[in-house]
Amino acid sequence: MFISFEGIDGSGKSTQARRLAKTLNARGTETLLTREPGGSEGAEEIRRLLVQGRSERWSAETELLLFTAARRDHVERLIQPTLARGAWIVTDRFADSSRVYQGLARADLRQLVEELHRLTIGMEPDRTFIIDIDPAMALSRSQTRGGIEDRYETLGLGFQQKLRKGFLELAAETPERIRVIDGSGSEDEVAARVLAALD
Amino acid sequence: MFISFEGIDGSGKSTQARRLAKTLNARGTETLLTREPGGSEGAEEIRRLLVQGRSERWSAETELLLFTAARRDHVERLIQPTLARGAWIVTDRFADSSRVYQGLARADLRQLVEELHRLTIGMEPDRTFIIDIDPAMALSRSQTRGGIEDRYETLGLGFQQKLRKGFLELAAETPERIRVIDGSGSEDEVAARVLAALD
Repeated sequence: MFISFEGIDGSGKSTQARRLAKTLNARGTETLLTREPGGSEGAEEIRRLLVQGRSERWSAETELLLFTAARRDHVERLIQPTLARGAWIVTDRFADSSRVYQGLARADLRQLVEELHRLTIGMEPDRTFIIDIDPAMALSRSQTRGGIEDRYETLGLGFQQKLRKGFLELAAETPERIRVIDGSGSEDEVAARVLAALD
Repeated sequence: MFISFEGIDGSGKSTQARRLAKTLNARGTETLLTREPGGSEGAEEIRRLLVQGRSERWSAETELLLFTAARRDHVERLIQPTLARGAWIVTDRFADSSRVYQGLARADLRQLVEELHRLTIGMEPDRTFIIDIDPAMALSRSQTRGGIEDRYETLGLGFQQKLRKGFLELAAETPERIRVIDGSGSEDEVAARVLAALD
């Protein structure tokens, strides 16, 4: 089974992805935790071009091509071989991030996102959890975290609000795959909601 | 006017591109010399991922997405603004390299190359010169040159022969845009052939 976590930066999705992978492994289901952009050696090199530097470093179109290149490498070198040997994958972000970031929030490129996905990726997770949280709280969390991977955080609260709206619209479009998880409360509370939604 | 030079590594195309730009500038036509992959700040960063390292570092599909990302950046940040202010562009490689390298020689991806080009690039040079040379001589030249940008040279003579065949097929398909220039003889002789074909 192939599971993705999505949401805005600071939503807690990375923590929840890690916790779910740990729980599944403890239950005896071999599960690999991975992330995007990145997850494979080549994709991690492309990641550095995407998450560091000024927000205007790339146009939305160039950025989308770079994310798609990283995703292609991740899928062919890590995700597909892992699923093929019967293990599970839990990934922190996948194609829905491109649908929302480049397709809706940074630019109106939803059709281009879908065409590139169809031409070069062609697979979806079996289940996607969107960790939903107040954008102001998420931004304050991700700013507290610091670090150099802040290319999107610098776009500010208005951008985070557009992202949240985009993720919720996507969930409404794709109810058979996507579950929206309330991200408020403690880590344990959110993890319990994720497990309930999975089982 | 937008002019590209194409051909296998070691064909002399970079030298001829530089000479043509110099001649055009000397004639009073403001001409910018550029290259692919690269030519703009972002595209030069993507270039390092493409021309260095082991040949199997990327699949043909991932490589094509990276070349397309670099080309998009090059087009929107350098080529289009330069043409818009009335100057000419001479580039060492453009989309025909993707058609031949990823579309024909490394893999059979010609249709994917054309779809990505249509979706994200959508422009062609006004005139393209393919510098045609014996692949064995070209390989020996590019190996003598050395350096770390040898990811394609390591694929050997059979690969160079496939590339040459691909470029000649492309020229036959697109006679209104592409001219094949005999790359044998001295630099001066080849430069004279290029100028005759341009005028």
